[in-house]
Amino acid sequence: MPSIPETAPDFARGDGLLPAIAQDADSGAVLMLAYMNAESYAETLSTGRAVYYSRSRKRLWRKGEESGHVQQVQAVYVDCDRDTILLKVHQVGGAACHEGYQSCFFRQVTPEGLRIVGRKVFDPEKVYTKDRG
Amino acid sequence: MPSIPETAPDFARGDGLLPAIAQDADSGAVLMLAYMNAESYAETLSTGRAVYYSRSRKRLWRKGEESGHVQQVQAVYVDCDRDTILLKVHQVGGAACHEGYQSCFFRQVTPEGLRIVGRKVFDPEKVYTKDRG
Repeated sequence: MPSIPETAPDFARGDGLLPAIAQDADSGAVLMLAYMNAESYAETLSTGRAVYYSRSRKRLWRKGEESGHVQQVQAVYVDCDRDTILLKVHQVGGAACHEGYQSCFFRQVTPEGLRIVGRKVFDPEKVYTKDRG
Repeated sequence: MPSIPETAPDFARGDGLLPAIAQDADSGAVLMLAYMNAESYAETLSTGRAVYYSRSRKRLWRKGEESGHVQQVQAVYVDCDRDTILLKVHQVGGAACHEGYQSCFFRQVTPEGLRIVGRKVFDPEKVYTKDRG
């Protein structure tokens, strides 16, 4: 059996950015995938709230900083290669997706095209008062 | 409300490779994250079995091709940005991880270090008869 490294995610892989999956701790629904760098990971652990790194905005993204829909982290896991992070979270407001759905994976691929299967929790225009950029 | 694009994952993002999450269709457990290119995605849809692209081996990776532990795809989703794929799968053999655990996320990050929380389903040395490279 291979030895278990005692260090956490290996940010040297993936050029300093690793994918992080957020899963609803209660329902098990996969809510979203975003990216973390070492700094956002450290802040996630220290604050207990999910902090990602926005690749488009090139800065830390404190999930819910604008909408108030923060993710309270219940548990953190790493995969066998230590290059993916899994967070079990409590999603405040009930919706992880900026489009107002519980999950960002609200569309299913079907032979007839994409079909909306998710439940809309809020109206984005009422939650976001400025452009997300 | 934004229009819903009728195309599926946008492989132009991520240099042709997108992360794909495999989730157990029954238990909801997040099993693993791997990557897909357009070819592996198309083969996944046409065969109903998960096919990834191995970044280390630089070739299609038909999950279970060696171990027999294929993933039968029950449903496919894309996220709001169409740059992440979610598969709901039936994991043949009960274990997605090459280390023999149900999930690749078998280690939890705790203040005392990594703690094994997953359940070992098989002994890798008895399943893989050659080096995985």
